[in-house]
Amino acid sequence: MVLIMKTVDDLKSPNISFISVTQMLSLIQTYSAGMLIEGIAEHIKEDFIRWDDFDKSPRFAAHSQEGVIELMPTGNSDKFSFKYVNGHPKNTKVGLQTVTAFGVLSDVASGYPLMLSEMTILTALRTAATSALVAEYLAPKNSSILAMIGCGAQSEFQILAFKHILGITHVKLYDIDPSAMTKCADNLKNYDINIELCSNAHEVVCGAHIITTCTADKKNATILTSDMVSDGVHINAIGGDCPGKTELEDKLLERATVFVEYEPQTRIEGDIQQLTSTSPVIEMHHVIRGTKAGRTNDNQLTIFDGVGFAIEDYSALRYMYNLVKNTNQFQQIELVASPENPRNLFGLLDSSNINHADCKGVA
Amino acid sequence: MVLIMKTVDDLKSPNISFISVTQMLSLIQTYSAGMLIEGIAEHIKEDFIRWDDFDKSPRFAAHSQEGVIELMPTGNSDKFSFKYVNGHPKNTKVGLQTVTAFGVLSDVASGYPLMLSEMTILTALRTAATSALVAEYLAPKNSSILAMIGCGAQSEFQILAFKHILGITHVKLYDIDPSAMTKCADNLKNYDINIELCSNAHEVVCGAHIITTCTADKKNATILTSDMVSDGVHINAIGGDCPGKTELEDKLLERATVFVEYEPQTRIEGDIQQLTSTSPVIEMHHVIRGTKAGRTNDNQLTIFDGVGFAIEDYSALRYMYNLVKNTNQFQQIELVASPENPRNLFGLLDSSNINHADCKGVA
Repeated sequence: MVLIMKTVDDLKSPNISFISVTQMLSLIQTYSAGMLIEGIAEHIKEDFIRWDDFDKSPRFAAHSQEGVIELMPTGNSDKFSFKYVNGHPKNTKVGLQTVTAFGVLSDVASGYPLMLSEMTILTALRTAATSALVAEYLAPKNSSILAMIGCGAQSEFQILAFKHILGITHVKLYDIDPSAMTKCADNLKNYDINIELCSNAHEVVCGAHIITTCTADKKNATILTSDMVSDGVHINAIGGDCPGKTELEDKLLERATVFVEYEPQTRIEGDIQQLTSTSPVIEMHHVIRGTKAGRTNDNQLTIFDGVGFAIEDYSALRYMYNLVKNTNQFQQIELVASPENPRNLFGLLDSSNINHADCKGVA
Repeated sequence: MVLIMKTVDDLKSPNISFISVTQMLSLIQTYSAGMLIEGIAEHIKEDFIRWDDFDKSPRFAAHSQEGVIELMPTGNSDKFSFKYVNGHPKNTKVGLQTVTAFGVLSDVASGYPLMLSEMTILTALRTAATSALVAEYLAPKNSSILAMIGCGAQSEFQILAFKHILGITHVKLYDIDPSAMTKCADNLKNYDINIELCSNAHEVVCGAHIITTCTADKKNATILTSDMVSDGVHINAIGGDCPGKTELEDKLLERATVFVEYEPQTRIEGDIQQLTSTSPVIEMHHVIRGTKAGRTNDNQLTIFDGVGFAIEDYSALRYMYNLVKNTNQFQQIELVASPENPRNLFGLLDSSNINHADCKGVA
């Protein structure tokens, strides 16, 4: 569980580890998505337990007419990480993704970057890992039926996480776009999960122990109203994640015990942006550390108002860094100038130091 | 001067442009450091002229015992950029650099990253370009003698910029470490500049038209006192660049007309952190746009309190992006997952989509 240390000599190399999209897919093939999600969930748990050691700030967001570009930095005394992530709901109209991401893990003592990774896929894995980790503390005992509202890019990862970590055996799907449901069902046909397609939101929540809402419209929508949801259920609400974008009726939030990652960020971005700034919420790290209660009885309605927090990305990058170091399943890119005499950067310009080698791929 | 547009089809490729350290050195070999500095200076000038179009914020800084890791984001309606940069003065003791950096240029409309570049070398080029661009407006007419205090990693780049953009012919060097001076002189021996080594700060400033201070200690130091400097000189003070790190005596600042990049950041990081928060300063974009005066007479003492601002990095990345697009002198890295159906990210996990190709180097 401890990070493999890079020596100063390692840092003197101009190369840092790089996990490309292809490499990430290959790692998933090698280890399975379920195993990676479990590993990331363990690392998130470790980092939530040492929550107080981290520098925490709301993300930096550059809003434009079409969407938002965000930087999500965090770190402790050992490592620093940041993720670059965009959110552009109209991208899909031209065949581009709503969300893409990449991230970097760095060494705090030297300030040197250690690893660059694609994070479009890794974010899907870590979001699923977070949802399932949280549900371990909040979902009703022996939950077996999951309702999945919204069958977009995140949906299959969410379902696999709940299967692997919670033991979910039955999944009900609903999306306003029927082709999204069939896409999701088709993708999971070899994963030993019973899948049922539903024709509306009332039908999909009926009998579910856990309800996940994961829709993408950048607007205040009401995917779930209070009258649709019985007591005793756990709602994993992860689609409300920026100002002006929510999924749950305010009455539903008021009825429930609401759990969040980092309150200052969730007040701005989460479903609780609909409530007053003093509405009661519980940060999940307290529950994981045992200093506050999670679910206390079978009739309690719990909501995880998940928006995604930088520490989860730190955990995911930390996990991947350890994983690939042990396996050599990474490339290297030459990102850091490495003059022999650090005060002689200009000396690198001497032609004898320049080789015109291409990018150095490693296994 | 207009950015080459990427089409949506280009964005659908998982590859983004990558300028490695080797590639940056190779570009300098092809075009010369002087030409790249001039090109970057032109782009900084263009972007300072459209200053009001940019989102501006002080940089994000994560301080640790050993140093600082910073993210410097900015953008306008067209492009977004950020730079990752560290500052760790003790790194040189173990053979690592004080400052390393890399950066990304992105497309605002889609949120997709376009280019990743090393910026350890590029930052040296853009810092030199900024200093010389500013001096075009502030240095005495027909300046020919430059005093360079501090002969570290930045010094040669600074000197080349002043030669190419200001026409400096004679450079006096001083550093408390004599080997740094000989390193600098040796690196520039083929660049047609008269170089003179000095044995103290009084000697180096004598007769100079422009004085550059570029020292690296992370502390409040007094490299130049007021009595050492005559009227009519321009001081390019670029070594004071974080809280607690300054180079100039306060009396010297009070005597001069002080110019800055972005006042809110320089109040925190620049030499003017020693003065009250209402001490008069002029932002350089006003001078470049002609809405405020630069140097107004031959006896004026001018100081550029340069700390480095995100727009300069944006300009440098924009310049490099255009340059490499025209020349094919870049690599590609596969950073952005690119599913055929953007809602079917999970579909990428299908083994038939995974090829185990190594990093794809281009030219």
